[in-house]
Amino acid sequence: MFPPLNPAGALKDGKPPDETDNANYFCEYAFLYHQMDMLEDEHRTGAYFNAITWNPESFKDKVVLDVGAGTCILSMFAAKAGAKEVFAVEATDMAVRSRKLVQAQGLSHIIKVLQGTVETVTLPSMVDVIISEWMGYFLLRESMLDSVLIARDRFLKPGGALFPSHATLFLAPVGSAKACREKQQTFDGERQHFDNFNCTMMQYYGTDFSCMQEEFLEEQRKYYLQTGMFVNLAPKQLAGSGSPVLEIDLSTITLQDLKDSAKPLRCCMRISRDSQLEGFTGYFNVTFRGSTQNPVKEVVELTTAPTTKTATHWGQQLFGFFPPLQAKNEDVLECQLFIKRQKKNHRLLQLDSAFELCRESNGKRFVCQKREDTWYVD
Amino acid sequence: MFPPLNPAGALKDGKPPDETDNANYFCEYAFLYHQMDMLEDEHRTGAYFNAITWNPESFKDKVVLDVGAGTCILSMFAAKAGAKEVFAVEATDMAVRSRKLVQAQGLSHIIKVLQGTVETVTLPSMVDVIISEWMGYFLLRESMLDSVLIARDRFLKPGGALFPSHATLFLAPVGSAKACREKQQTFDGERQHFDNFNCTMMQYYGTDFSCMQEEFLEEQRKYYLQTGMFVNLAPKQLAGSGSPVLEIDLSTITLQDLKDSAKPLRCCMRISRDSQLEGFTGYFNVTFRGSTQNPVKEVVELTTAPTTKTATHWGQQLFGFFPPLQAKNEDVLECQLFIKRQKKNHRLLQLDSAFELCRESNGKRFVCQKREDTWYVD
Repeated sequence: MFPPLNPAGALKDGKPPDETDNANYFCEYAFLYHQMDMLEDEHRTGAYFNAITWNPESFKDKVVLDVGAGTCILSMFAAKAGAKEVFAVEATDMAVRSRKLVQAQGLSHIIKVLQGTVETVTLPSMVDVIISEWMGYFLLRESMLDSVLIARDRFLKPGGALFPSHATLFLAPVGSAKACREKQQTFDGERQHFDNFNCTMMQYYGTDFSCMQEEFLEEQRKYYLQTGMFVNLAPKQLAGSGSPVLEIDLSTITLQDLKDSAKPLRCCMRISRDSQLEGFTGYFNVTFRGSTQNPVKEVVELTTAPTTKTATHWGQQLFGFFPPLQAKNEDVLECQLFIKRQKKNHRLLQLDSAFELCRESNGKRFVCQKREDTWYVD
Repeated sequence: MFPPLNPAGALKDGKPPDETDNANYFCEYAFLYHQMDMLEDEHRTGAYFNAITWNPESFKDKVVLDVGAGTCILSMFAAKAGAKEVFAVEATDMAVRSRKLVQAQGLSHIIKVLQGTVETVTLPSMVDVIISEWMGYFLLRESMLDSVLIARDRFLKPGGALFPSHATLFLAPVGSAKACREKQQTFDGERQHFDNFNCTMMQYYGTDFSCMQEEFLEEQRKYYLQTGMFVNLAPKQLAGSGSPVLEIDLSTITLQDLKDSAKPLRCCMRISRDSQLEGFTGYFNVTFRGSTQNPVKEVVELTTAPTTKTATHWGQQLFGFFPPLQAKNEDVLECQLFIKRQKKNHRLLQLDSAFELCRESNGKRFVCQKREDTWYVD
């Protein structure tokens, strides 16, 4: 399936992504403005910089693979931390630019840029460390972690380290969210919109579109109410703290685990004040711990949690409850969640969820509200 | 190359579009909100309605083919105008909905919806009329006219009519355009943006991105200054009337003519007042004249020219001159234009142009300003 190592010979560029995947996904990464957007996220770039340069013993004289290298910024950090050799794999034409950048830093003797998908490149040797910034909205959007795991299985020496090494997806209950109310209002207006539309079609063109009303409202519901919103929440908008719903150890998770969850993920969110729950939010942390055999000295964490400071470029994803749930202090919001990939585009997500708002009264626990919903991370 | 007619047998659905073309283009047309957007354009829908229903003799007992039928609105107009049979070809899943719509109007005995690209469907007979709404921004964006011409060559009887039958692309000089000034300002800000970016990268991460400055500015120039803008211009913003640069007779143009123009298109725009020319605009007309053998009784025209009334959903495309040209009353702006397809996506356009601003002085004509530019219609 994959080309073998090529211990005798040279590195080999790989193949470009398949054309549809390129149109849907990769093409955006070929733009400098997009790369700069990511580089300017100081949480993101700073966390990788710290994780690598604060732990030079993890990189000194090591062979490193950078998966989805973009401008090669992580490769350059690794080179500066003492790496002996860095293979920087980038599928888009950004590879051409990153070769220039690497040369301008005087690092071409260390960093070898390979253009192609990591599934198709040929390396001359196994590597000690894999570095990659693969996280998407809601952690898993983009499905790029697949490629990191394939790279791990193909190229990482036993005991080698992944940077980051761990990732956690959190859910948190959201009290007040204007964005949800606005979406509800817009969606409500779509009923009237359709009625007006159909009136016009009847009056001027003698055509009756009323058999499309349900499908139109379903389409609009999906777009306005069932699609995660990019937001930067303030901590005060949360009605309770975040709870981990998915914890990934990048050294052990299999591609199969990642793709199919036969069992739902679960988490319990404790509500910390009487409030309307207008929705819930998803955000993530990644941590850089090295491997069990080669742990780092300084653990670094990157979080996309709601903050009063500058937000990351990932923000958080917000999903609305329509209508809101009525919660009380000390209620527990229990969640069962399936994270699936969308059929039409495997890089986008579908979330099938069941929520129960649980309360204790007279020493007895009961479920006071239930919701089953599907959401999309587009 | 194409499946033959099937005079003995049934209609046959065709194949779906190729996956990349679907991701880049067709997928949008599977949404009702998008179809409704187009239907709600009263210039568009009204022009087709008038062209068809005011000319019932062109449709009475005729066999009609609707290329890219969407909701089948044009097919329904044709059926109501007396068509004997309508083949409505739609590549996306909108075909499933349009079958419902056709049934709801009680027109299933006349309109046969075929799902698939028109290049791949099988029809039982040739047709008398082809109706299609194929126009994109700047007339030719989307390259859908290709499919209409292929349908014509496969299925239209000699002497059959195309609705519309003619299309004209106009260019007009634009005096004042705030949109152009804003783009210029945004682009100018990108220099400072890059400087700030590079400062941060140097200061915090010891990485020098200055070798990317030129490429970044080129990328941003393309995006901000060389990409056509969707606008709705008021007639008073024009510095002279529009001039036809491309006239298409749909009954005779070949696919080859459409794809390759070895010679540049030309037009002359007369300037009607002293003014800064901040740019030029492109818009189009289509007319419904029937065929030479079967002309319509009532010629209908659809125009997307600047208007003080409600604009069409096509608006106009605006291309800026950076910096503006200084024009005087009675100057002539001469244009040579190549309309090409973008290499990465054949449905998008690249315009290679040469402009000369010509003036008469003491009975002599001279060129006072020249511009050569490339623009994109994305």
